[in-house]
Amino acid sequence: MSGRLTVIGLGPGDARWLTPEAHAALAAAEALYGYSAYLDRAPVRPGQSRHPSDNREEQARAAAALAHAANGAHVALVSGGDPGIFAMAAAVCAAIEAGPPAWRELDLAIVPGVTAMLAVAARAGAPLGHDFCALSLSDNLKPWELIERRLEAAAGAGFVIAIYNPVSRARPWQLGAAFDCVGRLLPGSTPVIFGRAIGRDGEQVEVTTLSVAKSIAADMATLVIVGSAETRIVARRGQTPLVYTPREAARAHA
Amino acid sequence: MSGRLTVIGLGPGDARWLTPEAHAALAAAEALYGYSAYLDRAPVRPGQSRHPSDNREEQARAAAALAHAANGAHVALVSGGDPGIFAMAAAVCAAIEAGPPAWRELDLAIVPGVTAMLAVAARAGAPLGHDFCALSLSDNLKPWELIERRLEAAAGAGFVIAIYNPVSRARPWQLGAAFDCVGRLLPGSTPVIFGRAIGRDGEQVEVTTLSVAKSIAADMATLVIVGSAETRIVARRGQTPLVYTPREAARAHA
Repeated sequence: MSGRLTVIGLGPGDARWLTPEAHAALAAAEALYGYSAYLDRAPVRPGQSRHPSDNREEQARAAAALAHAANGAHVALVSGGDPGIFAMAAAVCAAIEAGPPAWRELDLAIVPGVTAMLAVAARAGAPLGHDFCALSLSDNLKPWELIERRLEAAAGAGFVIAIYNPVSRARPWQLGAAFDCVGRLLPGSTPVIFGRAIGRDGEQVEVTTLSVAKSIAADMATLVIVGSAETRIVARRGQTPLVYTPREAARAHA
Repeated sequence: MSGRLTVIGLGPGDARWLTPEAHAALAAAEALYGYSAYLDRAPVRPGQSRHPSDNREEQARAAAALAHAANGAHVALVSGGDPGIFAMAAAVCAAIEAGPPAWRELDLAIVPGVTAMLAVAARAGAPLGHDFCALSLSDNLKPWELIERRLEAAAGAGFVIAIYNPVSRARPWQLGAAFDCVGRLLPGSTPVIFGRAIGRDGEQVEVTTLSVAKSIAADMATLVIVGSAETRIVARRGQTPLVYTPREAARAHA
């Protein structure tokens, strides 16, 4: 079995966030699989085949890439951000578990990348500077009740919350419901950050508070960070404010 | 005010994980500040001054770098992993908030990086493939009771838990106590990953379960990931098993 599958994180979009390992892995593959918008970011190399697919077809895409690799090819599957965070690495592992025994013997490598919450946090200051959670708001793959239970547990215990997949065309109300949910546990003055298309054209960072967060527009390219009761906003003249969560947590909870 | 401070994430250690942005930012600075072990990773450039400090002096180091930048210099402060995750960016923001007004007007940039949990997860499969928390086990900066409350909230709500700073010479018992704490809520078969010195000499990944996790040695270079009830181990002949958390959560909670 000489097949190889490399699952590559491209980072949030800016080429300056593509690691040298990811760059080399893209160049080394004979075939590239991925959601078409991510595949478009990989430089074209002669002799390398490209297999774009639609955004919602993660499991089929993972199986197709594994089947191709099992034929002895060196295949790469690209992911935005980090492939292990709400992305393709879990789909590949699930396909391996459910697939033919030969898939378990493939040479599988996962190349980490800068995930979206790190890029948004870097633009805003250090909102994830202390204990935090990352949670996908998509209720396509889990019941909404479980999402609310997790939001409550996280906000109640003082975790900052990074919200992936806050909104889509088919999920218009979930982000507002999430703000209502954490708003029952956190003060209205809690900082909230909207980061949109960070590292890409049209990048936007908006710093607001929980009491007005529902009035801010978000879309599929947005990542939202909800602070804890300890997260602070530092005003700066002529610049966006800094948002950070102190490394020490004694004050609010001692 | 022409001073500039760039807070740079070097990634977990392997130079192939240093982003092009971080590489360029290291080269552009006139002065480099950082914990000496991280500073040693930055290539030496003639004319660039270096200001190493001890591991435990984050707040003093942040203030020194800000004061230097406020004199008009272009200063870089280096961090391992991502500077926003249990690292220097929060210390810098706190120093700015507490410091002289001029520090708020500095040109501050934060350069994200690959944080340790992403590198460990990539080596293991996709343990962070669904909702997860990141938590520092250091009780230097928060009471132990708060750490236990957060572990219980996270494990009880089905988050995977990435544990930073699990052990130090001054904190020998905390990791065992954390396993006991989550063990009251999770089955003994829950997967646990120990990732040590990932991307550096002596890298080790160990996959075990919660029932025996207390017998595994860990140190300051270790990051621990505790799965949820849904995290799965996929055996592979002649290779370490894959560990992943499925993207969908309906099964265990519907």
